Amino acid sequence: MAALEAHFSQLLGRQGILTDPTAMEPYVSSWRDNWRGRVPAVLRPASTGEVAAVVRECRNLGLSIIPQGGRTGVTGAAQPRMDRDEVIVSLERMDGILEIDTDNDTMTVEAGCILGRLREAAAEVGRLFPLNFGAVGSCQIGGNISTNAGGINVLRYGNTRNLVLGLEVVLADGRVWNGLRGLRKDNAGYDLKQLFIGAEGTLGIITKAVLRLEPHPRGGALSFVALREPADALRLLRRAKDTFADNLVTFELLQQRCVDVTLEHLREGEGPRPGVAPWYGLVEVAGQEDDSLYGDAMQRLLENALETGEILDARLAASGRQAQAIWRLRESIPEAHNRLGFSVKHDISLPVSKIPAFLDEAETALRAEFPAIEMFTFGHLGDGNVHFNPLIEARGGDVLDIRRRVNAIVHDLVIANGGSVSAEHGVGQVRLAEIERYRAGVEVDLMRAVKSALDPWNIMNPGKVLRERAAR
Amino acid sequence: MAALEAHFSQLLGRQGILTDPTAMEPYVSSWRDNWRGRVPAVLRPASTGEVAAVVRECRNLGLSIIPQGGRTGVTGAAQPRMDRDEVIVSLERMDGILEIDTDNDTMTVEAGCILGRLREAAAEVGRLFPLNFGAVGSCQIGGNISTNAGGINVLRYGNTRNLVLGLEVVLADGRVWNGLRGLRKDNAGYDLKQLFIGAEGTLGIITKAVLRLEPHPRGGALSFVALREPADALRLLRRAKDTFADNLVTFELLQQRCVDVTLEHLREGEGPRPGVAPWYGLVEVAGQEDDSLYGDAMQRLLENALETGEILDARLAASGRQAQAIWRLRESIPEAHNRLGFSVKHDISLPVSKIPAFLDEAETALRAEFPAIEMFTFGHLGDGNVHFNPLIEARGGDVLDIRRRVNAIVHDLVIANGGSVSAEHGVGQVRLAEIERYRAGVEVDLMRAVKSALDPWNIMNPGKVLRERAAR
Repeated sequence: MAALEAHFSQLLGRQGILTDPTAMEPYVSSWRDNWRGRVPAVLRPASTGEVAAVVRECRNLGLSIIPQGGRTGVTGAAQPRMDRDEVIVSLERMDGILEIDTDNDTMTVEAGCILGRLREAAAEVGRLFPLNFGAVGSCQIGGNISTNAGGINVLRYGNTRNLVLGLEVVLADGRVWNGLRGLRKDNAGYDLKQLFIGAEGTLGIITKAVLRLEPHPRGGALSFVALREPADALRLLRRAKDTFADNLVTFELLQQRCVDVTLEHLREGEGPRPGVAPWYGLVEVAGQEDDSLYGDAMQRLLENALETGEILDARLAASGRQAQAIWRLRESIPEAHNRLGFSVKHDISLPVSKIPAFLDEAETALRAEFPAIEMFTFGHLGDGNVHFNPLIEARGGDVLDIRRRVNAIVHDLVIANGGSVSAEHGVGQVRLAEIERYRAGVEVDLMRAVKSALDPWNIMNPGKVLRERAAR
Repeated sequence: MAALEAHFSQLLGRQGILTDPTAMEPYVSSWRDNWRGRVPAVLRPASTGEVAAVVRECRNLGLSIIPQGGRTGVTGAAQPRMDRDEVIVSLERMDGILEIDTDNDTMTVEAGCILGRLREAAAEVGRLFPLNFGAVGSCQIGGNISTNAGGINVLRYGNTRNLVLGLEVVLADGRVWNGLRGLRKDNAGYDLKQLFIGAEGTLGIITKAVLRLEPHPRGGALSFVALREPADALRLLRRAKDTFADNLVTFELLQQRCVDVTLEHLREGEGPRPGVAPWYGLVEVAGQEDDSLYGDAMQRLLENALETGEILDARLAASGRQAQAIWRLRESIPEAHNRLGFSVKHDISLPVSKIPAFLDEAETALRAEFPAIEMFTFGHLGDGNVHFNPLIEARGGDVLDIRRRVNAIVHDLVIANGGSVSAEHGVGQVRLAEIERYRAGVEVDLMRAVKSALDPWNIMNPGKVLRERAAR
């Protein structure tokens, strides 16, 4: 241990290594779901060269590596396990914005940059970096890329994968792959960056990236609508797509319970909601025209939807403050939910067309086994991604057993409907069993072939995404 | 040979195998650049099961496989070499459209579907499948995916990679990977489909795909502008992006010579061009509003660009017929070019910001060695992709040597400017040397690791993308 400290201090300097348990505490634990473990050291390299040196040294010492960003994930991908030969490699000291090219509409950054800071830097030169979600103020772009983060603008701009043009990666053998190209078209061989995007640090450590920037929207409109049922939300989504096409940036679906408890949590009374209804939709458009153009078009869309009975009621945010109140409500749902007690959380995706039937089927199947279960569903309907987080009375029951049974019911139905058990959060440690169950056979074999090809020593975040085999 | 025929006839039926040299002729040759070779048989499986059976049989017989689509490529990726143990596996009989889901905005298709037919089927239900380029009437979607095809709408909709949600692939071991998921978000493990997109058939045979559909635009506008120099085109691109954002679907740059010879070839006199100028731009917008809205906005944009001197002159297509004439001109450039004699063609990409300086530098460097060289440049400026195809007097010279020298000058400069030697055409056989030269070391090692992991027997399109090593 002292030897280890001496070793890495020499490589990284005093600032580059933490071994004090109190100092390491935030690095070895998670903000949600109590993922935690132990490591002998947290390493904090300040350059790509230092990351590469760390990887080579770890291989020599027989240590595995947990690459770590802003620790805002919810799957345990960035947390250590207990009593393993692992160290954390935090990218937090590599937080430079290296270049902004306003003609190429790209930004070259280090992996440890906070997402919110990148968005601000882009806005300062009149550009948008579209990735956005609750953790924007603390998540790091390296982690966003490693988990192929989703969020609230995927409908228009795609997942993180779609926003990355180039990468620099330190490989398991300690070599550096320089794929930092700012190109929109590049078919000169396999598109290697795709391997590392969404690989949760199991194939290498992302150290730098070239990101796409978009023109910054000049105007937009936001509406909050009351709905009878999810099938109506689908009709409204169709209408919004046909009307706005790419200017439609967000289409969220919220169950009444989510809105009720969040308004209560925020002590907001009726807040910005358009009356009491079983479901709500949140529709946002943005583009290069003035607010008034989008406001008028949204107004017409809502009137037509009211006439046909697709929606029960609607509020069009008339000011930035009203829009903020609606977003605050939306973003506070997970926090309000966490205070309600035991729930089983799912981050699932389905073909958009299958969501209404799935929500019915899943509720029926769950109620048959858990009569007192309470549905709590919200998410990104436009992307086919819902956070399906039912609350269950767990007193006297075995929490792990309940979670296992609920997961099986929900995920079996998701797979039967052509869906995925992880839409945007990734696998980490929490979905290892599901990967083995639902993607067994050819798909898991392919993933293992890729892992073995890129990390034959199994030192890059082992036991994440793919379960470790008995013999290592 | 007779044994081979008997073998595969039993697997695929009489329709499933060609061995007659005349019948095989179109399959073993190319429409451009004379890629050709010999094979003992062309196999034409009619189902995924038959493709899998073919792969297993080929492995048993020690035969390699060249997966083949519509043969519209220009790199020799789909053509056989001479006197190798290879067969062609054509997907042309697998041309079904299996499902169109208008709520999920997806289409599930077999690999042998002609791109134009898919676009029509999408249009019939009010949707757009955005991929589009000259070969639309004969290229197949499996080939489009395998080459990550680009084309004229990449600026708005991305490359083919961005339009694929799911794949079914027959692997080198004859197993079928079913990744036919129609999901916009799926982070349950590695995104395996990314491996096969753009791999030119070297990692497996794509048999089916789930494709993204978009709302069909209702209106648009097209303008043809006269420009002094590429730097002005960049200024106009900026203006168009800021004005239209995602509604900007095309931004092409054409050198005067391209327009001159194509109008001559088409016997069109002055055609639709806005006067004689050193460069031209082609700007198209499309979206959910009426033609008149986009026409007015384009008119204002052109007026402002004229005032500031960014453009010399402009024509706004006032009718569908005028737009067709402009597109006909654009699409006929390669054909007109091919009739001019010897040229050295490059499909290069660069950061958009670097293109004007690159065009100057490349011309200067080439002229120093080839005083009579004539520039012939056109392409997709908005994507940073130009077809840089200078004409050279090759009489008395060694054509291969000239090509090698021109390639080295152009590609060295491309790489020095952070670009790629293949933007949208791929590697095939034509860019093998460039891959070894410019992506040597870590990048080629990574590609080889992926190839070995997925095709350890090297039976999937060997000698394409990556040069075969001496020992096999």
